[in-house]
Amino acid sequence: MKGLVYGGPGVRSWTEIPDPIIQDPRDAIIRVDAVTICGTDLHILGGDVPEVEPGRVLGHEAVGTVVEIGDGVSGLAVGDSVLASCISACGICSYCRQGAYGQCRNGGGWILGHLVDGVQSELARIPFADLSTYKLPEQVTNEAAVLLADILPTSYEVGVLNGGVRPGDTVVIVGAGPIGLAAVITARLFSPAHIVVIDKAQSRLQAAKMFGADITVLAGSQDPLETVRAMTGGLGADVVMEAVGTPSTFELCTTLVRPGGRVANIGVHGKPATLHLEDLWIRNVTITTGLVDTYSTPRLLDMVAAGQLDLGHMITHHFGFGEFMDAYDVFADPIHSGALKVMVSG
Amino acid sequence: MKGLVYGGPGVRSWTEIPDPIIQDPRDAIIRVDAVTICGTDLHILGGDVPEVEPGRVLGHEAVGTVVEIGDGVSGLAVGDSVLASCISACGICSYCRQGAYGQCRNGGGWILGHLVDGVQSELARIPFADLSTYKLPEQVTNEAAVLLADILPTSYEVGVLNGGVRPGDTVVIVGAGPIGLAAVITARLFSPAHIVVIDKAQSRLQAAKMFGADITVLAGSQDPLETVRAMTGGLGADVVMEAVGTPSTFELCTTLVRPGGRVANIGVHGKPATLHLEDLWIRNVTITTGLVDTYSTPRLLDMVAAGQLDLGHMITHHFGFGEFMDAYDVFADPIHSGALKVMVSG
Repeated sequence: MKGLVYGGPGVRSWTEIPDPIIQDPRDAIIRVDAVTICGTDLHILGGDVPEVEPGRVLGHEAVGTVVEIGDGVSGLAVGDSVLASCISACGICSYCRQGAYGQCRNGGGWILGHLVDGVQSELARIPFADLSTYKLPEQVTNEAAVLLADILPTSYEVGVLNGGVRPGDTVVIVGAGPIGLAAVITARLFSPAHIVVIDKAQSRLQAAKMFGADITVLAGSQDPLETVRAMTGGLGADVVMEAVGTPSTFELCTTLVRPGGRVANIGVHGKPATLHLEDLWIRNVTITTGLVDTYSTPRLLDMVAAGQLDLGHMITHHFGFGEFMDAYDVFADPIHSGALKVMVSG
Repeated sequence: MKGLVYGGPGVRSWTEIPDPIIQDPRDAIIRVDAVTICGTDLHILGGDVPEVEPGRVLGHEAVGTVVEIGDGVSGLAVGDSVLASCISACGICSYCRQGAYGQCRNGGGWILGHLVDGVQSELARIPFADLSTYKLPEQVTNEAAVLLADILPTSYEVGVLNGGVRPGDTVVIVGAGPIGLAAVITARLFSPAHIVVIDKAQSRLQAAKMFGADITVLAGSQDPLETVRAMTGGLGADVVMEAVGTPSTFELCTTLVRPGGRVANIGVHGKPATLHLEDLWIRNVTITTGLVDTYSTPRLLDMVAAGQLDLGHMITHHFGFGEFMDAYDVFADPIHSGALKVMVSG
């Protein structure tokens, strides 16, 4: 089969690799029907996630059809159409038993396309298949389902729920990539008064408005601090989410939050940031970081199936497997391509 | 009257100053019966709190007797014995109405010995006296009461409650000064499994054991990370409190916390710290900062009056007002003096 293989910082190829095999009774093998590329994959290619070794198949957001199951898999059958989640979970360690699947101590967590081969390939091995996949309701399209593998639960759990968004809040989201946009979509569920989105690309700010932001700030041309202070009586935002993953955007978040407010970091970071404790110690600020646990995925699937979450327009480009390298090029250059999420189908 | 006057970084004097007068109908004037010195006063003298202007009377932890009240004070009478809290509160702004008195927008918050003259003086003006003082129950001694002006509510609210200490937790407290020790006392109320205290002074670690820590680590001689990992199966502590106020101790806290754990910063900081987001983004860590709100002060007073909180041994040295400069010397050199809190009485 073919897969998208990481070759070290900056290097990737769509190339022939061995078919995956069942390695543990809890594994399943899926035929990948649709898969997408994550900003995290770009962070990996940028060298921000050094645990990823050259030779690794990337990808952690897929929809597939089960083609083989190990003897220990009880909830799946060959032919099932499943969402392959970015988070794998043993289900029995102390963290999994509290629903903190992202922190699984038994070899789960975020492993796909990170510590084991991922799903940007024609076939893929899914460890702990019972807990790492979700059977797809008929009403949920592949286009919507791939967005539930990572970005929707990540933005919802790590951004909106960790940030504690509440009705009437002023919410600021720094970064209008797919994660920032998914944060807009899921923040709206809590009826904030305002959603302010900051990005350096006008096209992404337009997308943010389409998904429900009411105020956008073009970084570099407008001053986010001035905008946010002016609309909050000088105080700052109730909740600020970081959806980029750079020191400067994180530090911006800590200046935009009001005393007593919350900063929820969603971004993947490769470098330390400066925490201005000389200002923040007295301001009652809460800062959270987090890898998604995916405890919300079943509920989000229900909401998509019921039509409560409209994910249309998030996937802007479609490719076939043979065009995987082009898909990366398009996704990595959103300012020119206008890409939000790209989907690659078998 | 005489007061302890800040003269700029490193400079203080016990000197003759004008008697305070009622400046606002909500003011009261108290005769200071007992007052203590806070680590924050040392941070001010160290230049960490640049808003404090030379000429300012320091101090924000006192017990006094009301000698005059403004026309707008309704809950106090001349002769009342009161705790003068470190936090003043207007009671009517949006923050005060939510109990976030420390963030008062109408001129309250931490102002005593900071933005207005404090209580290290023979007489003191207490703004917003109705909300900034607490009548003392007869059972509560001055020795206990002065500890409720700042350190007990600060360690309880900003450390223990923000840190979310729960039964069975492993709690680490970095710094065994009065704030760290008050964190030990109040963390015990939630029945943690272990309280680990880290300090560079053996005498303070002995005090931590006396107040209820079960494990102590002498910084410089023992490796805190090794100790905490060994006792938590390699994971780290559930809750880590920073009670020093330096970049290095804060950064130590973020290495000692387990995935999914909480770091509660209590320390007063004058410099930024490095936040290692390249490690922390994936670890589901919550970091809180905070100035005390003192919403817990009435309940803590009840607990002291009922004998549920034993604050004996916290005040190690007593001075008269004429010895105020000596009191500072002793408090600022705890390794030699063995000082925890020092009390100065009229």
